[in-house]
Amino acid sequence: MKLVTYAGADGVEYPGVIRGEDVVRLDAPDMRSLFEQGDAGLEMARATEGPATPLADVSLKAPIIPKKFFHTAGNFREHEEESKNVNWSHEIAPWIVFFQNVDAIIGPDDPIIYPEHLTRELDYELELTIVIKKAGSHFTAEEAVDYIGGYTIFNDITARDIQREEMRSGVFSFCKAIDTFCPVGPWIVTPDEVGDPQNLDMLLQVNGEDRQVSNTRNMWVPIPEIVAHYSALGYSPGDLISTGTVAGVAAFSDDPEAWYLKPGDVIDAGIEKLGVLRNPIISWKEGHGEDPPVSSRT
Amino acid sequence: MKLVTYAGADGVEYPGVIRGEDVVRLDAPDMRSLFEQGDAGLEMARATEGPATPLADVSLKAPIIPKKFFHTAGNFREHEEESKNVNWSHEIAPWIVFFQNVDAIIGPDDPIIYPEHLTRELDYELELTIVIKKAGSHFTAEEAVDYIGGYTIFNDITARDIQREEMRSGVFSFCKAIDTFCPVGPWIVTPDEVGDPQNLDMLLQVNGEDRQVSNTRNMWVPIPEIVAHYSALGYSPGDLISTGTVAGVAAFSDDPEAWYLKPGDVIDAGIEKLGVLRNPIISWKEGHGEDPPVSSRT
Repeated sequence: MKLVTYAGADGVEYPGVIRGEDVVRLDAPDMRSLFEQGDAGLEMARATEGPATPLADVSLKAPIIPKKFFHTAGNFREHEEESKNVNWSHEIAPWIVFFQNVDAIIGPDDPIIYPEHLTRELDYELELTIVIKKAGSHFTAEEAVDYIGGYTIFNDITARDIQREEMRSGVFSFCKAIDTFCPVGPWIVTPDEVGDPQNLDMLLQVNGEDRQVSNTRNMWVPIPEIVAHYSALGYSPGDLISTGTVAGVAAFSDDPEAWYLKPGDVIDAGIEKLGVLRNPIISWKEGHGEDPPVSSRT
Repeated sequence: MKLVTYAGADGVEYPGVIRGEDVVRLDAPDMRSLFEQGDAGLEMARATEGPATPLADVSLKAPIIPKKFFHTAGNFREHEEESKNVNWSHEIAPWIVFFQNVDAIIGPDDPIIYPEHLTRELDYELELTIVIKKAGSHFTAEEAVDYIGGYTIFNDITARDIQREEMRSGVFSFCKAIDTFCPVGPWIVTPDEVGDPQNLDMLLQVNGEDRQVSNTRNMWVPIPEIVAHYSALGYSPGDLISTGTVAGVAAFSDDPEAWYLKPGDVIDAGIEKLGVLRNPIISWKEGHGEDPPVSSRT
C-alpha cells in the first residue's frame, strides 16, 4: 500500500491511498492523524472505497509532517570513508542522532530554495526513512518491527560550508535545517510491499547523471537496532527516522565545485520499491520574489 | 500576563491566564492554538472573563508543547570556562544550536524519571527560554522583538556520561532528549511583565541548596541576535528557544558524585519574574512500576 498526501485543483490537502492510476481519499484530517489511529487507521486505508481521482490530476505533497524527525548520520561506512576529514569515535553507537527541522519538510516537486546569502556549497544526501506506526519507548530490536509503519525517501539537503564551521564545535544541525532543506516522499510504502528493507537499490541523480549509487544492505547498523536505540527518547505515531546516506555526495567528489547544487538543477532521489523523489533547485529571488536578505550569520 | 496550561480534578487540560489567586480559562483548544491566533490570541487572553478556578485547585502542566524547540548551547562563557575539556571554535556563531525532543517535555511538579539503565550521571541546567509569537523567517535582530511572545524556564536535564561519549562524535542530542528530560514552566510571562530580559537573576537549587547562581546579563550573545540567527530555519507560533545555561552544574563541581541528581532529589529552577519550576527525581521503578529494561545502548 502506498500512502500519500495530495492536493487537487482547489489546493486543499487530503491523505490518500494509491490504487492503480488513481488516488483514493481517506477519511482522516491528515496522514499523521491516520497513523495516530494505529493499525485500525492502516486497515481503514487498505479497505477504503472513498472518492477516487486520477493521480495525473493531483499534486503530491510531503506524505506526512511528523511530530519528530530523528536524523541519523554516519551509518554507511562508505560515506565515512569518502569524508576523509571526519573521525567519529562511534563509542555510544556506530552512528549519530539528532532532530531534524519539521518545518523545513517539503514534498515531491516542491522547490528547494537556494539561500545564497548563507551558503555556496549546497549538497544532497539520499536516505531511506522509516515511518513509526505507534507510540512506544524503551523497547528492544526484537520488538522494533511492530513499530514500523512504512518507508519513504528523504533527501538531506546540506550546506557544506556551514557544516564545516559547525563541526568545529561538533554539532551540525543548522546546515541541514534551513527552510526547504528537507524533501520527503513521494509516498509512504507499507512494509508488506517493501519486503526486505535491507536490500533496496539506491540511486540519486542530478540532471540525470548518477551521483549516489548504493544499496541499503550497506548500512552499518540495521534498521531494528536503530529503531530500538532511539526508543529511549520516545515515539509518537508518524515520527520519521532517517538512516544515513551513502557515498557520492558533491563535497567529497573529485570536482565539488562542479557537483554542488545550483539553481536550475533537478535532483532525482530514488530507492527501489519506494519510487523517486524529484525536487528542483531555484534561486532565492525565484522563490521569494525579492533579493536575499543580509546574512543573519554573525 | 502569565499564561498557563492547567488541569482540574477531571484531568482535562485547558489553556488559562492567571488573575491574582485564580486561573481563568481561555477559549482555545490549547496554548499553541492561542499563539497561532497571533496578537489577537494574546489580546483575547488579556481581556477574557471566562470561568475562574482557584490556582490551589488545579495542577499546572507544561505551558506549551511547541512544534519546534530550538536548543542553544555555549552561550554563557562562565559555563564554558567551568567545562575545561570543551573547546568550541564558535566560528559560525558564538553558540551552538540543535533541536530538542518535544515529546520529552514535562511540566511543573512532573517527575523526571531516572533511567538507571542508561546513565549514572544525571545533571541539571537552568535556562531562560523564549516563546515565539508568530511565524517568520530570515529576519534581522532589529525585527526580532516583534517575534517574542513571552519567556519561560527550561531545566535542561542531561546524562553527562552519555554526553561525553556522544561528544567524541561532536553531536550531543541523545543525552538531553530522553523521556521526561525537558521540564518547562511554570508559566509563560509576556514581555511587558518581564521588562529587560537581559537582567534577570537566575537561581537553581537542589534540595534547597544553591547550585547555579547567575544573571541573564551574562549571556554572550543577546536574545535578539539569537532569535534572528535561527530565523533562517523558520518559526511556527509557539516555538521555544532556550538560551544556554550558566556555571554551577554537577559535572564540573568539586564533587560531581555528590552533586549528580538521584531519586528523591527535588530541583527548583528559578528565574526572576518567571517564577520557579520545581521537579522531583524519581526512580525508574517508581515511574514505570517495573524494573528498567536491558539497556538499548549498543
